[in-house]
Amino acid sequence: MNTGKIVRTIYFEDDAVKMIDQTKLPSKLVIHTCVTVKSLIEAITSLRVRGAPALGVAGAYGVLLSAIQHKEENCEQFYMHLREDAKAIAEARPTAVNLQWGVVAQEKLLDISAPIEKTLHLLKENAKSIADKDLENNEMIGKNGAALIEQNDSILTHCNAGALACVGYGTALGIIRFAYAEGKKIHIYVDETRPLCQGSRLTAWELLHENIPSTLITDNMAGFLMKQGKIQKVIVGADRIAANGDVANKIGTYSLSVLAYHHNIPFIVAAPTSTIDFSCNLGEEIPIEERDGNEIIYWHGIQNAPESVHTYNPAFDITPANNISAIVTEKGIATQPFIETLKQFKP
Amino acid sequence: MNTGKIVRTIYFEDDAVKMIDQTKLPSKLVIHTCVTVKSLIEAITSLRVRGAPALGVAGAYGVLLSAIQHKEENCEQFYMHLREDAKAIAEARPTAVNLQWGVVAQEKLLDISAPIEKTLHLLKENAKSIADKDLENNEMIGKNGAALIEQNDSILTHCNAGALACVGYGTALGIIRFAYAEGKKIHIYVDETRPLCQGSRLTAWELLHENIPSTLITDNMAGFLMKQGKIQKVIVGADRIAANGDVANKIGTYSLSVLAYHHNIPFIVAAPTSTIDFSCNLGEEIPIEERDGNEIIYWHGIQNAPESVHTYNPAFDITPANNISAIVTEKGIATQPFIETLKQFKP
Repeated sequence: MNTGKIVRTIYFEDDAVKMIDQTKLPSKLVIHTCVTVKSLIEAITSLRVRGAPALGVAGAYGVLLSAIQHKEENCEQFYMHLREDAKAIAEARPTAVNLQWGVVAQEKLLDISAPIEKTLHLLKENAKSIADKDLENNEMIGKNGAALIEQNDSILTHCNAGALACVGYGTALGIIRFAYAEGKKIHIYVDETRPLCQGSRLTAWELLHENIPSTLITDNMAGFLMKQGKIQKVIVGADRIAANGDVANKIGTYSLSVLAYHHNIPFIVAAPTSTIDFSCNLGEEIPIEERDGNEIIYWHGIQNAPESVHTYNPAFDITPANNISAIVTEKGIATQPFIETLKQFKP
Repeated sequence: MNTGKIVRTIYFEDDAVKMIDQTKLPSKLVIHTCVTVKSLIEAITSLRVRGAPALGVAGAYGVLLSAIQHKEENCEQFYMHLREDAKAIAEARPTAVNLQWGVVAQEKLLDISAPIEKTLHLLKENAKSIADKDLENNEMIGKNGAALIEQNDSILTHCNAGALACVGYGTALGIIRFAYAEGKKIHIYVDETRPLCQGSRLTAWELLHENIPSTLITDNMAGFLMKQGKIQKVIVGADRIAANGDVANKIGTYSLSVLAYHHNIPFIVAAPTSTIDFSCNLGEEIPIEERDGNEIIYWHGIQNAPESVHTYNPAFDITPANNISAIVTEKGIATQPFIETLKQFKP
């Protein structure tokens, strides 16, 4: 796992969706195989695969998997089951728009008058193209965003917007990878990102594997680092971007954006244009997934709080456009006012 | 453990310092016994006892323990060993000024010309008085601070400034206890406070035991709650307060103060006047303890990050006076400008 070109986070092989099981990292690198739509949905809800761009690809592969499962049925049943599965996959998680986007990109190919074999072929080619395009996009995001990184920058990142959040290479970490490969001397501070620690488990793991200098901190240390002048940029990914530039991303992103604003530190969001939801005018319209409170109370079965404690566990928050300096996409960089500048990326 | 009057967090019995072992909570309520200064220092550095006011009492008991250990020696050796032990206890942890304060309060009684029995008696009486005074102070802090709490307030607190951080009752939680006992309808949001989770392990436990309505969150959720209008006050404790009102407290306090400032939410610090260090002009002069990075990498032996990851683990940060609305002590409430108003509390 260096540029993500060798090992893909998610791929299709032998009529199955295969993925690095991200719940097992950093202790074990395990490939998890889904041969049914049901098992793929389980993999999505339990976060074996996560990250907006990877979920887009999972959505596309999911529809393909459904088609393979149902290919022996008659045409009517085949397309009916395909639509049912597509809906279930798209609804597996609510916040990242890419999941729905990947499903819809496949649904557009469905022509009830077409023979099943032809549909199967189209879905397979399209899924492959979406996965390949994800890698290409991330390298372009990396290249575009690296222009914002200066020599000797220390960069804070939150959660994992790396190769593991995509097919490979990464969005926020794509920029970091590109800047580092260009020879820029940079240091990365990694927020552990409670409750599921995608920062400490995944981002720290990716950076170590590529020898990019990094330091792991807990989420509540970020402000103190900024105050000490140790952070020159914050770069995060996105799960959904509203037309006005409001960004839904991993819980804690909003706090970081306020801290960055307070300390005059550029706050950069990196995402493919497929993450922009032009049907969504404002961040407030983005549904926020609330997850099981046991994610906070237990850590791999070890108790961290009284069992009967009441919890609140939103998985995402909304960062207002006003707190964001730049949104870096594969098609270029948008800056304030985003309501105008994002339009250029409209499909 | 309701008002802290029944079970004390730390007490002296049978020539030993006894304490609730806070590393075992919330799973087990265990009393840990220290019969030597060495074991007391271990209990302090490993956080079996923690919290600035409790450390003050631990310091006073520590000098008493030393006197009991060395009482059979000749006068010269006795006082020499007492001074050595006092120094070692005071240096066990650097940030909370109360530890040194408790030790110095005992050292002031040392008169090399006095018989050992008399000194023993004085140290015992003084330690008891310091412990009793801690409870009294906290009830006064509670009473004074409760005046700032309004009906239907939702209050965010960080780390544990509760009965467990003191002999009993608590400072920040003392205010909450008092307001709740007065009949005010309040709701408490508890930051888990990584890496050692004093919020989820200790504060959530205390509040559950007293049926004060509370919700546990991860540290990175605080900003999102504030944005949603769910927080009306932030109340935290303090490990050391500089003469200008800058406050050293658990890591993450600074971030919360910036978030509260940004959202126009009053930020209240609760501490006994023994936490004010008038010899310290500015927060920058306060030493910040940096702890072992394994506190971030492991949770009770379960790996949370790659083993070889580089970490930064400051246990405290400095909140500038400018971000603080009020400092509540047993002697009254100080407000801006603290450099003037704190003077009234000078001994």
